[in-house]
Order: sequence, then structure tokens, then C-alpha cells
Amino acid sequence: MQDSFIEIIGFIAAILTTAAFLPQVYKTWKTKDVSSLSLPMLLLFFIGIVSWLAYGFLKNSPSMIFANSITVVSSFLLVYFKIKYRE
Amino acid sequence: MQDSFIEIIGFIAAILTTAAFLPQVYKTWKTKDVSSLSLPMLLLFFIGIVSWLAYGFLKNSPSMIFANSITVVSSFLLVYFKIKYRE
Repeated sequence: MQDSFIEIIGFIAAILTTAAFLPQVYKTWKTKDVSSLSLPMLLLFFIGIVSWLAYGFLKNSPSMIFANSITVVSSFLLVYFKIKYRE
Repeated sequence: MQDSFIEIIGFIAAILTTAAFLPQVYKTWKTKDVSSLSLPMLLLFFIGIVSWLAYGFLKNSPSMIFANSITVVSSFLLVYFKIKYRE
């Protein structure tokens, strides 16, 4: 299959999973309600995203580099909010 | 860089981001507290993961296929819990 077609699928995935964090980050920032967010989940996820970013560079995947560069920032913000606002 | 080394990075990423959802799914199932989970986030994320799974197949990436096959199930469960338990 053509590489450009594959990257279109990748960018659709990238935009959706990246955009998925924006309402969560906004909601958490606005409500300061972190009770049903799990800190172990957020930390594992953050380190995982850093690893996916490395993998994206090694595989020369533009859509993975794009997605994980943004998600690394938004998942870091969720970790920060969880630590700052927890009881 | 050697392909097998690249896949090791990919599998580290895969295990971390996959494992990241298990405490969240468990916590949500146990507490039935979905107040700080965002439904738009969960839905976008679920469709995004389906797209990443397709991308993983098209790129012949074992670590992406592994990670996204599992995450597609756990993100579906979170969508289900959010709809079932919301006020």
C-alpha cells in the first residue's frame, strides 16, 4: 500500500488520540477534580508516550512523532494536576 | 539502527501505555466513579486507537499491533463504564 495513504491513517489516529487528551486536560484544570484519575496510570502513560516518541523517530514515522510530541506535553500536565490537586 | 532494537523500544512503550489503562479500568470498575472522566475524550481516544491499530498493521509494526489490540479493549470498557455509571 502507498506510504502516503498509510500516513493519512496515521495522522487521523494522531489527531484523534491527541485531541482526546485536550478535553481531559481542560476538564481537570477547570474542575480541579482529580479523584477518578489514577496516578499510576498517568505516570506509566507518560513514560510510555516518551518511549513511543523515541520509537516514532527510529521508525521514521511522521504521524507518530507528531502525535507523541503533543501527547507528551498533555500527559505531563495531567500528572502535574493530579499531584497538585489530590487530597 | 537494528530493527530488533527498535522493536524493543516499541515493546517497552507498548507495555507501559497498555498497562497504564489497567489501573484506570480497575479503579473505574471498582469505584463506579466516572465523574472526572470525560466522555468526549474517551470516544475520540477509542476511535484513535482503532486507527493506530490499522496503522500498525499497514506499517508491519509488531509493537503497535500488540499495544493497540489490548488498548482497544480497555478503552472500550472505559467508554462502557462512563455511559453506564454517569449521573
